[in-house]
Parts: sequence; structure tokens; C-alpha cells
Amino acid sequence: MLAQRLRPSLLNSSRLPLRSVPRRIHTTSPLLLRIPRNITALSTPCRPGTIPRAHKFTAVTPAGAHSRTLASGTPLKKRSRLFQALYRTFAIFGFATLTVGGLVVALFVYDATTYKDEAEKYDIGVSEIALNPRTGGPKNLPIAEVLVDAEDLGNLKQAAGKPRLVILGTGWGSVALLKNINPDEYDITVIGPSNYFLYTPLLPSATVGTVEVRSLIEPIRGIVRDAKGHFLKASAVDVEFSEKLVEVSQTMPNGEVRNFYVPYDKLVIGVGSKTRTHGVKGLEHVHYLKDVTDARRIRAKVIENFERACLPTTSDEERRKLLSFAVCGGGPTGVEFAAELFDMLNEDLVHRYPKILRNEVSVHLLQSRSHILNTYDEALSKYAEERFARDGIDLLTNSRVVAIEPDRVIFTQQDEKTKEIITKELPFGMCLWSTGVAQTDFSQHLAAKLEAQHNKRALETDTYLRLLGTPLGDVYAIGDCSTVQNKTAPLISDFLKQIAWERGIKDPKQLHLTFSDWRLVATRIRKRFPQTTDHLKRLDKLFESYDEDRSGTLDFQELNTLLCEIDSKLTSLPATAQRAHQQGVYLARKFNKIAHAAPGLKMNQVVDGDLDAAVYKAFKYSHMGSLAYIGNAAVFDLNGYSLGGGLIFLYLWRSVYFAQSVSFRTRLMLAMDWTKRAMFGRDLVNF
Amino acid sequence: MLAQRLRPSLLNSSRLPLRSVPRRIHTTSPLLLRIPRNITALSTPCRPGTIPRAHKFTAVTPAGAHSRTLASGTPLKKRSRLFQALYRTFAIFGFATLTVGGLVVALFVYDATTYKDEAEKYDIGVSEIALNPRTGGPKNLPIAEVLVDAEDLGNLKQAAGKPRLVILGTGWGSVALLKNINPDEYDITVIGPSNYFLYTPLLPSATVGTVEVRSLIEPIRGIVRDAKGHFLKASAVDVEFSEKLVEVSQTMPNGEVRNFYVPYDKLVIGVGSKTRTHGVKGLEHVHYLKDVTDARRIRAKVIENFERACLPTTSDEERRKLLSFAVCGGGPTGVEFAAELFDMLNEDLVHRYPKILRNEVSVHLLQSRSHILNTYDEALSKYAEERFARDGIDLLTNSRVVAIEPDRVIFTQQDEKTKEIITKELPFGMCLWSTGVAQTDFSQHLAAKLEAQHNKRALETDTYLRLLGTPLGDVYAIGDCSTVQNKTAPLISDFLKQIAWERGIKDPKQLHLTFSDWRLVATRIRKRFPQTTDHLKRLDKLFESYDEDRSGTLDFQELNTLLCEIDSKLTSLPATAQRAHQQGVYLARKFNKIAHAAPGLKMNQVVDGDLDAAVYKAFKYSHMGSLAYIGNAAVFDLNGYSLGGGLIFLYLWRSVYFAQSVSFRTRLMLAMDWTKRAMFGRDLVNF
Repeated sequence: MLAQRLRPSLLNSSRLPLRSVPRRIHTTSPLLLRIPRNITALSTPCRPGTIPRAHKFTAVTPAGAHSRTLASGTPLKKRSRLFQALYRTFAIFGFATLTVGGLVVALFVYDATTYKDEAEKYDIGVSEIALNPRTGGPKNLPIAEVLVDAEDLGNLKQAAGKPRLVILGTGWGSVALLKNINPDEYDITVIGPSNYFLYTPLLPSATVGTVEVRSLIEPIRGIVRDAKGHFLKASAVDVEFSEKLVEVSQTMPNGEVRNFYVPYDKLVIGVGSKTRTHGVKGLEHVHYLKDVTDARRIRAKVIENFERACLPTTSDEERRKLLSFAVCGGGPTGVEFAAELFDMLNEDLVHRYPKILRNEVSVHLLQSRSHILNTYDEALSKYAEERFARDGIDLLTNSRVVAIEPDRVIFTQQDEKTKEIITKELPFGMCLWSTGVAQTDFSQHLAAKLEAQHNKRALETDTYLRLLGTPLGDVYAIGDCSTVQNKTAPLISDFLKQIAWERGIKDPKQLHLTFSDWRLVATRIRKRFPQTTDHLKRLDKLFESYDEDRSGTLDFQELNTLLCEIDSKLTSLPATAQRAHQQGVYLARKFNKIAHAAPGLKMNQVVDGDLDAAVYKAFKYSHMGSLAYIGNAAVFDLNGYSLGGGLIFLYLWRSVYFAQSVSFRTRLMLAMDWTKRAMFGRDLVNF
Repeated sequence: MLAQRLRPSLLNSSRLPLRSVPRRIHTTSPLLLRIPRNITALSTPCRPGTIPRAHKFTAVTPAGAHSRTLASGTPLKKRSRLFQALYRTFAIFGFATLTVGGLVVALFVYDATTYKDEAEKYDIGVSEIALNPRTGGPKNLPIAEVLVDAEDLGNLKQAAGKPRLVILGTGWGSVALLKNINPDEYDITVIGPSNYFLYTPLLPSATVGTVEVRSLIEPIRGIVRDAKGHFLKASAVDVEFSEKLVEVSQTMPNGEVRNFYVPYDKLVIGVGSKTRTHGVKGLEHVHYLKDVTDARRIRAKVIENFERACLPTTSDEERRKLLSFAVCGGGPTGVEFAAELFDMLNEDLVHRYPKILRNEVSVHLLQSRSHILNTYDEALSKYAEERFARDGIDLLTNSRVVAIEPDRVIFTQQDEKTKEIITKELPFGMCLWSTGVAQTDFSQHLAAKLEAQHNKRALETDTYLRLLGTPLGDVYAIGDCSTVQNKTAPLISDFLKQIAWERGIKDPKQLHLTFSDWRLVATRIRKRFPQTTDHLKRLDKLFESYDEDRSGTLDFQELNTLLCEIDSKLTSLPATAQRAHQQGVYLARKFNKIAHAAPGLKMNQVVDGDLDAAVYKAFKYSHMGSLAYIGNAAVFDLNGYSLGGGLIFLYLWRSVYFAQSVSFRTRLMLAMDWTKRAMFGRDLVNF
């Protein structure tokens, strides 16, 4: 469109000298009579550089050759047009070259400023207490009250008065919290075994080199520095809730383990999860896909197997085994890994390796349930299954893995008709195990310490994300390591307390709720348990249907039944990046509010108590949808809207992850990786 | 410049309607009289889109408003100019956007074509002999006469008649050979333990993340495929020279080792070298820098040490030890690593880590000789030393390492005055060992098998790069694993044979050479030992000075003295990428010549013999220069021209390596890495 609009204006100017003049004379003939007087005035200040082309052309025409000029007007016009067109083309190319060249020069100039020629030496002060921390706590360990970089940030004095916020873990939840918290309100310390944030959703892509692992990581120190915080690369091993101390473990190069305490005012636990084993033996022979090193190892292993399959001493049977890839678990990770592997086989393997490999390669997906992607909409799950069937990915549903041997999976399948259980085996060259999440040792240890913790899969929090069993407002848990306790029924008395008090009834069990009472209770439940909102929509209908004795009121028992029914409908929140992110943002906003309210509360001598509930709403998870890549196609499950398809959806899927990526840096690197794949293919190299 | 040339043409067109018209009238007034007749003819075919702006403008001017139009000409002109300028600006921006947009769209369209939706299945034939090779040879192992991908290349039948060329190793020499050989003349098989070519000169940059290791590697299978060859990822362990078989070893996933033979007609050994230990004990505590995994480990280790140095339980002394980086070896690798490390400390460490780290970090360079970069010009070596001194890199020259303990280097220094030898120790957090090259086990094994091999450091070849002691034209050795035997004196009889025969003298020792005889001999020597060319320049002077008895002739003894003198001046070729590359190119050219000459020779029943000497000249190494990076500066030693300096030389240094990089892909990735460093710094992350 723009090119068309631009073109006439460029052409016009080249036509002007020959066409516009006569017409101008034609339309402005009355004006023409006065012009001769102005001619000298107009032509005198004319600089040589601005002499119009038309002027030159006519000036060289001899006075006596008019007729010839007119007769041969067309060829002359042509040459001139061609010349002008060429001139313009060169000008535009030149302009483009100049622009690009300018950008390159600018880059070099900028680059040149980034080198530091002189070694910078700082005259820094490190306080004695940072270098030689005092010891204390139940185990008499060093207590890291001040860290060595406290004065770097120039906030030691200010930090003194600020609450200490300690964050365990560097995943989605922690990073969302760090990016949204007001850096001036807390003295933040982040503790984690990795010094990077990993962009987990694209990890399957990194296993085959569609993207590089370095494009998925963002150094955590940058994010922590933006929040004016400190980072310690170490693992938390215990928490002394009563003394507000986290016990952290460090290993020296010689293997010596040293523990120390980090004191906190507020502690956020976001330590994530580990892979669930389901009690299967032999998992030392499989690969997990939780971290960058896993992705790197898988990539090396896959290519190592390709290479081994080419060697002359490898028998046919061995070749088929080397090229058999088993994936245990039909969730998004397993499905996406199978899809990425399939892409790589089709797009790159055939060009680089002997063709026999492509013919003997097989990908197997073992799923214990009857469908893959079973948390997604059924239509999508089916679409993915059809796609996989067409691609020749061997889908083994209703298959329960019972053991892993060094080179084979042993699994059982139930015959759908006879219900007979058959044991089968699948030889593999590489096996990925991705069957959901389980508690880390640290989380298990904490759960065992706290009486209020009953869930075996995750640390339970209330709807304010406070870890159950710890002093209110001290300890929070977010992300995969946590689950939000969403049972309304156990708190029934709480909801009825005020109404009972108003009515002068001591025992809430004797209450009979009118519809307006019920409305009041429902509002309270929704406030405390925002997740119930969807189930508390038609209050009149609920009232009617649970008022079994048709008394026009709900008695305690009826209300209890109602709440139990609602509780049964509430599912636990999914262990996803999405949830962790929302919880991190939630905590950051709440902490900002609390910091804002703190001076007033201090003045009024309100110390702790249920501050969280007072200053901010309870956490509500809002599901934005799920998506999965299924091999040059993708499926989107967007709260009831199911979408899926080929290349367009692949690009959509990438766009979503591109947009959600953590920094401009990682986005640039992702774009570069995808371009690289298109231009050169994946580099099938193992080290 | 271009912008200035472009601007007037754009401006002119906007001025034309107002200025050019009167002037045109002025200069072409005689022509004007005839124009009215042509007006209709000219204006009729005019399409609406091409109506010149001037025409529009004048058309809306009412006939009775001439004076007002003239009076208010300036503001109207201004608005119009502004409008036109805006219009043009938007047009140019639009054009630029359109171009960039177009490129992005083109990229996406191209990208879309790179996905393969359907699984390709090939109907391939693999010959029985490839799947079940016959066994034989001294150890009765399988002999891989045909590989599984023989028919993929569609050249099984043609390959049958072609000589089998087997190349061991995937380094500089092998790749240069593969890229220059005529793919249709040989049936090529490359065997190596890595499936990539590593761009070694930039390896030090990869240790700190200035560039990524993936940007330094090129998958070897692509290069091999271009040469219509085969690749086996395995290690050669032995060669049966008499039966023309290479013994290759493969390890299965369960650890089982399987050996097999690969038959050859021509074998090229380019297996490289390993790091020299100098018999020092405790090298299990140091890092080498030979391969990508080394670079990766060093990077992880450096950052791990930074992280440990931040922890509160790390004492001051421990912190200084963790941050002490020792480099043993003052050659280019050691120097460049120290330089890169220093850059990283200055440019990135200070921004991300507590400032105390920068103050306590130390880099030590231990060199056994009195200068670093001792193979370079002395001025450069001094420049580098001064630069390092200024940067605070601790240079320990004349320091001989005697042992490495887990956390310290034990070394001796000779006092320059007292000549007393003092033993010192240097605690380190990380130690790099880069003290030259030594023979691999495979090379040692081959050398031990061959009686003609005397050199303990490398496999000796003649000047045609044929491995000494093997049948002529069978086995060649190139690169770091080899050295060219450059002794002319032992071949003195060969040079004199023809002259003696012409003179009818049986014993060449009785010959007396005239000056013209000497010229003849010198020509032959130069042909056979091109490296002597520089030392055989002034033949008359040499003749004069070695004719000790002033007899006007050189007798055998005098000639021998002369040649011995020349031999002593010939240094062995450096173990560099440059030499390996030149040797690879040399072999490729020679092999092409041999293949070209082969049919004729076959017809004439010439079998083997000294074919190499017959068809192609001897190998001559021409040193292009050496360069080294020394920390935001670089030094260039270009055959006598010594250059060195700051940023400009850094860019020059990069340009050289950028240009020499192996593919467009790696160049793009290097450019991207350097840009990334400028924009975001190095990512200080360890995994």
C-alpha cells in the first residue's frame, strides 16, 4: 500500500518538467500575463544546486530547433525517465545501505563504550559483622544478619529499619514477586541453588536444539539487583519458625558442608517440586526434564544414539533399540518432548544421518490414563492423539509403568474388553520420565515439622498464601511446592460467629439462617475463599435446593451439607508456571500494601495479627488457559474455548511464549534461535 | 554523502510547482507561443493519479483571486512545503517499515516452508554387506567395507572403483582437506570421537561467555556430506599398515567395547594432540582448555567460585583463595584466557556481584621462561607484559611449576641475581594448565610401531606429508599430531646422485661441485625442502663462504657442512591451526592431482612409486602471522611487522577470526554473541 502511494509522488516529480508546464499555462493563462515581471526576481536568488532539471533541458535547446525537439520528444522523455528511475533506485538503495551502515556503526560505537580499559578499584567498606557473623540459634550456627554487599547498595542504614524478606527459590513465583515488589520497602534476600531463572515452558524445545538452553535462562542476580536485594547461591535445609531463622547449607570446593542461619521477618517459600516417581524402580536409567542440565543431557544422549546407530558393528536389533525413544507420561511435558523429537527427526535427521536411521526410529508415549493431555478439553486431547497417530508416534494409553530396566520399560496394559492385565516391555535407547510433580525433601521436612500440615503432596497454605501452622504473617508458600487449602466447611463456625453473636446465640449450631443471612454468609465465604465464587452464583437456587425441610431457613446441618458439596467441586490449583506467577504477583502487591500500612499500625500499636486479611484480599487464581505444542501444530485450551491446528497455531504458540518471556534479552535470543533453525536447521552435535 | 545527494532531488520536486514554471517561461519564451496548440493533446490522456500537484493547486484558485493568491503566496507555500516534507518523511518511514516488515514476512514465509508436516519415509536399500560385514584382518574383526549410508549418496556403484580415503580426526587439517578435495574422486570416510569441528582460536573467549561454545562449533556431518563422504563417530586405536586397515573402537551404551576395521587406500592422520604435562604431579586438580567441555567447565567453575565467595560462612582468606585464578603457561592460550577473565571481572562482575569480590580477585600467570608470548616478536611480548602489569595481572615469569596440590600451585623461581632457586606456592580457586602440546596415545602407539619414527613429540613425515616408515602414498599425517622432517643433510647423496652419474663417478663423496653444479643441487634441495628457500637465497655467497679451501669447488665434506648449517636454522613448524589448515589444503590439492593423473598412470601400468613427488610439489608452510588477545587490546606479529594496541586492534583481531570462521552460520552466531555482550553483558550463570 505504502509503496503505491509513494511511487506516484516520485514519478510525478520526474514528469513535471515535461508535462506540468503546458498545463499550468493552460489553467492559469490570466495569471501568465503578470508573470514576466516576476521572472528576474525569482530566478536571481536561485543557487546552482537547485536548478530544476527542466530548466537545464530547455536551456540547451537551440532556439531554432523547436520543431525537432517536439517531434523527438518521446525518446528524450524515455531516457530521462529511465535515468531518473535509476537515479531514484540508487538513491533509495543508498539510503537503505546508509541506514543499515549507520546502525552498524552505531552498534560499534556503543560497543566500544562497553569495554573498560582500566581496572576499577572500589574503596568499599564491609562491616565487621558481615565478615564475622555472630553465632546463635538452636544449632549455634553463624547468623548472616548483614551480607557482604549490604553497603554496595548504599542502603545499610535504611535497611536497618526495614523488614527482612527472605525468598527461597528462583522460579516463576519468586521472580514474579521480585519484579512487582517495591524495592524500597523490604530488605530482600533470595536464596536458591541456581543463580538463574529458567523459562520452563520451552524446556522441551531445548532438548533437541530448537532453542538453546541459554535463551531460556535469565541471571537471577540482575532481577535481584533491580529489587535492591541480595542473592545467596545455596540451599535452604530447614526453618526455625519460632526464631525466624532459615538454615542454609553451603558446600566448599573441598566438599566440606557448612550451614548458617539467615534471619527473616517474612519468609516466602518457592522451592518448587521434584519429579514424581510413583514408586517405580529403576529410575536411575531414565532422564528427567526439570532443569537445563536435563535438557542438555537429553540432547547429547539423543545424538549419541544416532551416532551409535550409524556404526558398522551395531546390529539391526541394536539399531532399532538405540533409536527407540520412550516417553513416560502423557502430560504437556511428555507430549511436547515427543513432538519436538519428532520434528527434529523429520526436519534435520534425514539430511544429516544415513536414511536407514529415519526408517528405524520410533517414538513411544506411555500414558497411564486413557487419553494424553487429560487435563485439557477432550476435543483437544483427541486432536493431539490423531495428530500423533498420523505422525507415527506410538501412543500407548492405559499403560502403567511397573519398572524400568537399563534398556527397557516394563509396563502393564488392561485389555479394554476382557479387562485382563497384560505385562509388556518396550526396549528403548533413551527414556524420558515426566509423570507429574512431588514434594522436595525440604518441603517434606517442613510439612513434618508443622502439625497443621496434612497434605502429602504440597505445603498447605490458607487463601492468603500463609503456610498453615506458622505464626500469621511470617511464612508464605507459593508455586509448585504449595497448595491453597480451599475447604470452606471446616470454617463454618467462623462464618456464623458474627450472626450468632448478633442474635445472642452462643452455639452457632442452633442458628437458622434466613435467605438474607445466607447472603451475608455467602459474601463472607466468597471473600475468604475467592475460588468459590463460580459455585456461589445462584444463591436463591442453592438456598432452595439445600433447604431440605422446606422451612424457609437453612439450619446448621443443611448449611454444612451445602458447603461440603461446594468443597467437593473445588479442585486444587494446577502446578503450573501460571499459578506460581500469579501467586508471586499477589504476594508482591500484598507486601507493598502491608509496608504502606505498617507505619500507621505501628503507631496504633497493632502488632501482627491478621494483617493480611485487613489490608488485602485473598488470593484468587484465574486460569488463563493451557497450551501445548504437538509437532508443527499446537492446541489452546482457553477457558472453554478450544483451538488447535497447524502452522498458524505453532506461530501463535511461540508468540505467547515469546511475549511472556522474562526479558528483552531472552526474547532476542529466542527470535535468533528460531531464525537459526529456519536458516541452518538444528545443530546435531553432542557434548 | 548520499543523504545530501538525495535531499535536493526530494526538495526540488516540492519546489517545482512554484518556482520552475516562471523560469521555464522565461527561458523558453519562443517555444511558448506554440504550446497552446498542444495543450489539449497533452492534458487529455492524463490519468487522475498522475495529476501534478501544481495543477491541483492552481485549479482551485478562482480566476478573480489572482492578486490575493500572489499576496498570500508565502503562507500557502509554507503549508504546502511543510505538508510535503511531512508527506515525504512519512513516506520514507513507511518505506523503511515496509522493507523491514517485508523482510520479517519473508522470513516467516521461508520459515513456514521449513516445517515438514508429514513423516517422510524412504524406500531405501542397504546392502547386506553393510549390515553384516565380513570379518578378517590380523585380529579377525568385522571389516566395514560398505557403510549403511553408501546408497543414500547414490554413489555405491561409482564408489566401487574409487580409492578409499580415510581421514582420522575432525580438526583444522581434516576440515581444510574435506573442503578442498574433489568429492567425486574419492570415497571418503571421516572417523573421529567428536561430531563437530571446533573453532579453537576463540575457545578462551568461550570460557567466560564472551562468545558461546555453540558459536564455535560446526557439525562435521554437514562438511562431510558436502564432500560426499561418510562419518563415523568413533576413535581410531590402531593401524595395520601392511593390510591397509584402521582399527576403530566403539563403546555401546552398556559399556561394551567393540572394535572393527575400516579399509583404506589412502589414510590421513589428523588426530591432534593432548596437553603436555611436563611430568608435573597433581594435574587432576587443574583445568585444560582443549575442547568445548573444558571451556564449559571453566565457565561454570569461575562463576561457582564467585558465588561461594559471596556466602557469609566464607572467611576472608577463603574468599581470596576462591578468587585467585592461576594460569600455568604464558603462550597464546594462557594469555588470552587471563585477558578474557580480566575483561569479565571488569565489565560484568562488578555490576552483578558484591564489590568486595572485585577487590579481592587476582589473576596469576605463571611462565617458565623469562617472557610471555615468547614465540612472538619481543616488542609485542613486552607490550603484552606492560599491559598485563597495568591491568594488575600478576605475571610470574621464570617460574617452573613443580607440583599441583588441590588448592595451590607449587613452583620454583630462580633469583635473577643470586641464581638461587626458591620454592613458592600460590593458592588458587581455579587453575588452568596450558603448557603446549604432547602426543596422543594413538600417535605414540603408531610411532612405536614404525622404525623410521624417532621424534618423541609428533609423527614425522617427509615434505610430502607422508608418514615416515609407511609404504609411499599410503599414509599421511597433518596438523598438531605431525611434524615435517626438514633435515637436508641426510639426503645429500640423493641430491648428488644424478651429477655423479653424469660424471661417471660411482661414489658421490668424491664429487667436486662447481658453482653451476651447486646451483643445480640447491634447486633440487629447494624443491624437496621448500622450507629452505629463505636460507638458500644468496647461492654465490654461500658457495664462497663454505668453500673453505678456496678451491673454486665444494667437495662432499664442505657441502655437508653447508647443509648441516642450513638444517640447524630450520625450526620445526608450529602446532597451530594455521599450519594444520595449510597442510589440509595441500593434501586436498595433491589428492585431486593424483586422482586426475591416475587413469593415465594405470594405463601405463605405473603403480604407486613416488607418485606424490611426480604430480605435485612438496609442502611449504608460509607463516601468515600470529595474533593474541590481551584484554581490550591485541597484538599482531605479521612476519616482521609487529602491531599492537587497544580497541581498534580488538576489532581487528575479531575481524580476522570472524573472516576465518568456518561457515556463514558460525559467523552470524559470533556477530550475535558479540552484540549480545555489548547489549546485555555476559550472562554469569553456571550450569
